[in-house]
Parts: sequence; C-alpha cells; structure tokens
Amino acid sequence: MDCLATLPGIGRKTAERLALHILHAPDTEARSLAENILALKKNVTLCATCFGLSDRPTCRICSNPARDAGTICVVENPTDMAAIEKSGAFSGLYHILGGALSPMDGIGPDEIRIKELFVRARHRSTREIILATGTDVEGEATAAYIAEQLKNTRICITRIASGVPMGGDLHFVDQVTLQRAMEGRSGL
Amino acid sequence: MDCLATLPGIGRKTAERLALHILHAPDTEARSLAENILALKKNVTLCATCFGLSDRPTCRICSNPARDAGTICVVENPTDMAAIEKSGAFSGLYHILGGALSPMDGIGPDEIRIKELFVRARHRSTREIILATGTDVEGEATAAYIAEQLKNTRICITRIASGVPMGGDLHFVDQVTLQRAMEGRSGL
Repeated sequence: MDCLATLPGIGRKTAERLALHILHAPDTEARSLAENILALKKNVTLCATCFGLSDRPTCRICSNPARDAGTICVVENPTDMAAIEKSGAFSGLYHILGGALSPMDGIGPDEIRIKELFVRARHRSTREIILATGTDVEGEATAAYIAEQLKNTRICITRIASGVPMGGDLHFVDQVTLQRAMEGRSGL
Repeated sequence: MDCLATLPGIGRKTAERLALHILHAPDTEARSLAENILALKKNVTLCATCFGLSDRPTCRICSNPARDAGTICVVENPTDMAAIEKSGAFSGLYHILGGALSPMDGIGPDEIRIKELFVRARHRSTREIILATGTDVEGEATAAYIAEQLKNTRICITRIASGVPMGGDLHFVDQVTLQRAMEGRSGL
C-alpha cells in the first residue's frame, strides 16, 4: 500500500483499494501487472532521432518511410507529440525537446535537446521546422529562440496558429487569446 | 421571492436571501435598484448602426471619431463584442448579427442582421470585414456564408485565427483545434 501510494494521483484510500484488488485477483493478473511494470522500465527508451518514447533504437514514426522526413514538428514532451499524432493533422517527423527554456528554473538551451535539433536541421532533406511548443511564456520563448537561431538557414520556420479554440463562444475566451486571434486573422 | 426566482441562476434559496436583504436594506438602496431596473428597460436600445446595446440612437463606439470606420468586426452577440472590446485588440466598428445561421432551428439569413451588414459593406469607406463569429458549427457556417456573399466585392474579408489558446499545454487541446493550429501555421 505504501508503495502504491507513491504513484501520482493515488492516495491512501485508493492504494488500499488497489492493494486489496490485487490480493483477490488471480495469480496471472498480478504477475502480468508486475511483468509489464518491469518491461516498461526495461524496454522503453528514447528514440535516437526524435527523442520520443520508443521500444526500439529508432521509433516507429522515425523509421516509417511513409512519413514526410522533410518536415520536423518540434514539441516539448512526448504527450504533446501524442496529442498531435492523435489529431492526424501531421505526417512528418517529430523532435521532442524534453522541456522548454526557462531561465528562472535554470533551464537553458543546453538542458533541453535544442543542439540535437540544430544537427537535424542541417540535414539536406529538412525543408520545414514547425514549432509546436506550448503557448505559455516558456513555450513561446523556446519557439522564438529556435526561430532566431535558424533564421539564416534555407529552412522554413513556422509556428502553429494560436487563436480561438474550436467549438467555443468568443466571450469564454481570454483576452490575450482574443488579441492573438485578431492579430492572426487571415483572408477568406 | 417568486419574482426574483425567475432570474437566471437564482433558485429558491438565493431568492429568499435576496428578498430578505432588500427587506433589511435602507429605502434608498431598494429604490435605486428598482429605478435602475426600470431605466434599463426604458433607456437601453439597439444602436441603429451596429445593433449593439446602447443608451442612445447611435452607440458610443459607432459615434466615436477616433475609431477606424473602415474596419467592421462581425460578431454574434453583444457579449462577444464586449469580450473583443476588453481585449483591446480592435479599434474599428462592430456589427452585431444577433445570432448565427442555424437552419435546423429555422434561423436563416433573414432572421439575423446579415442584410444590414451588406448595406454597411456597400459603404465607400468600408475596407475590411473581420468575421469574428463563434468557432462552433453555426458560427463557422455564418462566416462562410457572409464571405461567400461578399466575395465579388473589393472589401477584404478576414476570419479571426483559430488555434491553440494562449497559456495552454498542447495535450489539453482538442484534436480539431490542433488540426486547425497545424493547418493555420505561419512563418516566423
């Protein structure tokens, strides 16, 4: 129970419930859970190209010849990559920074995988780098830093659109987003 | 109490609390409340130009010479106008449609103030019409309809940007918004 309670979002009561469930579950179920936990730590590593989570040296996306290798979408975390992947709007490759620049927390360009991105950017096939870091201060600063560093290359540097989310009423949207939506308006 | 309970968001308990408050409040406060309610109904009308709420025939925004009369921002409701106004991102005039096209609910172009917009669009000074209707199905359809009707004019028709709202993590954003953000990406 003490061990289960160390997991995020699981308190004393839930830990007790889980422990009792495992106690009453068949042997095979308990063994499968234990083995999967060990396998997770053993098998999941970072892809050597994009630094996403992978169970092989090069992940399924980076090694898929059907993906457009000329476009690299830069995200902060594997969860962001999963969200974009789920939306189906992107068919290129990813680059997971592993965080965003945050000088206040001591996170500079060397603490996240920006150098590795620049190495990939020098590759002949790279045509476009889409900056899909978060829209908070750190994410914006990271996007601005990368764009600045790559501005004198032949690569097209783009930023995902910020504006009003879909299905929303305008008056539920915050003021900064409305400003962005107004500034970023485009011809129809 | 029955009367107060007809207001939206006010149930029996709150109505009782409000009624008791008014009972114990000084005469002047109760009279001021009553008079303001009457004045609200008597004085607030729709602006003859933009159809926003106003206490005079032409509202403060439409009659303000400092506003750019060449740009008209089209919104569904007065609350949307208030939201954009608060964001400070727009210094032109507004046009309040009073709803969005919704054929399922019997709301066609004649039920909202689209004709009045076309009259304003014909005015010589109008340079740009910004479609800031909602990002739900009805709002998008309304924007598409207006853009289609005005496509053969010299006016620039623009749509506010839809995408990731500010300050957000990508993985909290829905898939359709992520698709839009990816499609709407722009060069840095």
